Amino acid sequence: MNPQTTEPKVALIIGAGDATGGAIAKRFAREGYIACVTRRSADKLQPLVDSIIAEGGQAHGFASDARKEEDVAALVEAIESSIGPIEAFVFNIGANVPCSILEETARKYFKIWEMACFAGFLTGQAVARRMVKRGRGSILFTGATAGMRGAANFAAFAGAKHGIRALAQSMARELGPMNIHVAHVVVDGAIDTAFIRDNFPERYALKDQDGILNPEHIADNYWYLHSQPRDAWTFELDLRPWQERW
Amino acid sequence: MNPQTTEPKVALIIGAGDATGGAIAKRFAREGYIACVTRRSADKLQPLVDSIIAEGGQAHGFASDARKEEDVAALVEAIESSIGPIEAFVFNIGANVPCSILEETARKYFKIWEMACFAGFLTGQAVARRMVKRGRGSILFTGATAGMRGAANFAAFAGAKHGIRALAQSMARELGPMNIHVAHVVVDGAIDTAFIRDNFPERYALKDQDGILNPEHIADNYWYLHSQPRDAWTFELDLRPWQERW
Amino acid sequence: MNPQTTEPKVALIIGAGDATGGAIAKRFAREGYIACVTRRSADKLQPLVDSIIAEGGQAHGFASDARKEEDVAALVEAIESSIGPIEAFVFNIGANVPCSILEETARKYFKIWEMACFAGFLTGQAVARRMVKRGRGSILFTGATAGMRGAANFAAFAGAKHGIRALAQSMARELGPMNIHVAHVVVDGAIDTAFIRDNFPERYALKDQDGILNPEHIADNYWYLHSQPRDAWTFELDLRPWQERW
Amino acid sequence: MNPQTTEPKVALIIGAGDATGGAIAKRFAREGYIACVTRRSADKLQPLVDSIIAEGGQAHGFASDARKEEDVAALVEAIESSIGPIEAFVFNIGANVPCSILEETARKYFKIWEMACFAGFLTGQAVARRMVKRGRGSILFTGATAGMRGAANFAAFAGAKHGIRALAQSMARELGPMNIHVAHVVVDGAIDTAFIRDNFPERYALKDQDGILNPEHIADNYWYLHSQPRDAWTFELDLRPWQERW
Repeated sequence: MNPQTTEPKVALIIGAGDATGGAIAKRFAREGYIACVTRRSADKLQPLVDSIIAEGGQAHGFASDARKEEDVAALVEAIESSIGPIEAFVFNIGANVPCSILEETARKYFKIWEMACFAGFLTGQAVARRMVKRGRGSILFTGATAGMRGAANFAAFAGAKHGIRALAQSMARELGPMNIHVAHVVVDGAIDTAFIRDNFPERYALKDQDGILNPEHIADNYWYLHSQPRDAWTFELDLRPWQERW
Repeated sequence: MNPQTTEPKVALIIGAGDATGGAIAKRFAREGYIACVTRRSADKLQPLVDSIIAEGGQAHGFASDARKEEDVAALVEAIESSIGPIEAFVFNIGANVPCSILEETARKYFKIWEMACFAGFLTGQAVARRMVKRGRGSILFTGATAGMRGAANFAAFAGAKHGIRALAQSMARELGPMNIHVAHVVVDGAIDTAFIRDNFPERYALKDQDGILNPEHIADNYWYLHSQPRDAWTFELDLRPWQERW
Repeated sequence: MNPQTTEPKVALIIGAGDATGGAIAKRFAREGYIACVTRRSADKLQPLVDSIIAEGGQAHGFASDARKEEDVAALVEAIESSIGPIEAFVFNIGANVPCSILEETARKYFKIWEMACFAGFLTGQAVARRMVKRGRGSILFTGATAGMRGAANFAAFAGAKHGIRALAQSMARELGPMNIHVAHVVVDGAIDTAFIRDNFPERYALKDQDGILNPEHIADNYWYLHSQPRDAWTFELDLRPWQERW
Repeated sequence: MNPQTTEPKVALIIGAGDATGGAIAKRFAREGYIACVTRRSADKLQPLVDSIIAEGGQAHGFASDARKEEDVAALVEAIESSIGPIEAFVFNIGANVPCSILEETARKYFKIWEMACFAGFLTGQAVARRMVKRGRGSILFTGATAGMRGAANFAAFAGAKHGIRALAQSMARELGPMNIHVAHVVVDGAIDTAFIRDNFPERYALKDQDGILNPEHIADNYWYLHSQPRDAWTFELDLRPWQERW
């Protein structure tokens, strides 16, 4: 039998369906972390899990609804009891759906908050409780410019993103002195995704000149934040392409 | 001769149960507005309504749950069809309940957001749709320092208050050019209320030296914002006692 | 003869050459304050002084360079010893001169800071020292959007305006508990001035629809801030026309 | 022997007298950059230069007053003509000297700005003009919490740091689209320096538990910023020890 010489370390990425979440999972897997990736339907996760394993990494996919407290509790318990301690946590669910305040529906306003903020509270809290007992860990939230500024036609998305930033700040101030590193990454610009390619072709064409964000480069920053020594932790950094107007 | 020489004008205050909401209602009533005041149970509103009428003003109390879309629709329809056009709207529901992120319940995190943010969306939107048709009106939100900064142990309240500020900013940017004045008042300090008197007596003792906010003085600022000419509108102002540390 | 039954009260406006400073002086004069107005050359002040006196107010013009410590000391001493205590102070010198960072001269970068920030330190401090001894007074700074955000081609102006905002914040936090009300007014938009009329005629044409700021309306806010009771002081408010994009 | 196969690359650190500037210089030297380090008196630079050379790196010390336009022009010309193109520029002059606004001298208020802001303009501009011609380079400014917030007794330092942040923002917005990466590092906490050791021994004792910032860890972030690919540039990140209250 080959004795396990090092402790397993889990990186849990909530919302690994998109390019960014997937790239973050791969990045941590390359560093020796067992990537646990979630989205609502597991089948769509299989290509990501397969790709990490093909690279020689370890990964597990979980169908889990981050908006349901029971799902979240079951997910964290399953990982911690069967796979390993969650050392890095990334909340990466977005919901960037613009709408005039006059046309927005109550249902959609609620759903956007539930996905992009409430789910962050549920999952972040569940993981924080485990990390605090161990006295270590990183909790990383994907933010957006809408978390800093409420633009016209973005009431719902800005509300959710302001909420997640408030959560991150509040957690950072409370949990930092317990040796938990909480950080917030402000992504400001279009990302190289199928969605941008199909819906904003002119924007996507900027890829040739590095005018849209490469998910792998975004992922590097999550790894960087997780790796910072605790005498010099970053709470917030922004990321945008060199050409971006801001 | 037509005795009614001026059109009725309504000031709707959502969350008029506390000292601040009540003072705002009285202030607008003194300026000739019909004060429509709401909270969940109508009986607690009667003293406020009586007091406005005793002063020679006009007032109506409504039991209405601002978190329920149907209640909100019925409320606005009742006022607009039977009383008059809503010219000033104030959203004043707070929910300042601190808690460690490790202890916060999902239910409470949700309730705080539902009361202090979602209700602001529902009521603000319902009123905005009427105001936009008339091309005029003021929409005023009560904010807090927690809307600017997520302190330790305030994840839920900060999340809700960040959300309401995002809503206010987004509405201001979209509705300003439609001649709707949207503003956000950042109250930073203890207010002269029974709650502070009973729970924070040392703080309350500062009243003698003007160290806590007088609700009537807060109310003056809402009237001031509503009265600003449209070439010089304020989106945001803060209010704090002279001694306050910030 | 009717004896002067009330103490004289001085409002000192540094930089009263432009429309805003003039309007502020007139506003305080209408409230019974003796308006002391300064700019570098006194002759240009005479029309303002004459106009206040013609309205029945009291006013004095001073040629004074707010960038020179000796001038400032002499000015404040002259006013305090011969006219009355300075109860309200307004620093209103601007220097909105855009330039590419690649073309900006060291001389201009320095001059803009000297006028729009250093002069504010010299005059604000000189007045604060008098007010602190009396335990009362208001110190009001005219700010700009450039004080919140460094836009391309505005390094010098943004630097000066960020500096004056830092000064105002630092003074507010230190002097508030000494009963000195320090505030910062963020003017965001074109003002109805000869400069805008002559150089930006398209912008100026928005005046017909209240699309540029009326100096008298700006001035109302300075009076409002000075009048606030000390249990509910505002540190910062913004002002912009309803149509303004921000 | 071994011909120089790669172009020389210079990292210029203005204000390399302290621990942070020195650590940044060493970090870039380790990556193959020729470290050019400045402070007002050259002799104090010699130990730093010697230490870099002892490590196998390349370094040059320059006595240069960053507040003097001619000095700055001569410095940049000397480096660019004799050593190599400046690919990374770091402005690291601080001046954290607290003082009551009532006691601050005009001379000190000016000096603090001149050192911590004006020198940043002079040096940053001189280097930017070279970089823009080459179409590449990084310009990195050391900031502080005082650049975000004007605390009591910090009017001068906050003014300078607000000014340097405004400069950085304005340069980032103008020069980013020219492929120049401008960034601002907000250092929030005590740094492991002789100054802290000698003057704040209780604070310094936190070193044992990583409670003060290690200059080498700060330096890592400058290198990180310089290394970011241009599709995902950071403008601003903060750094603080895990225990720090903020």
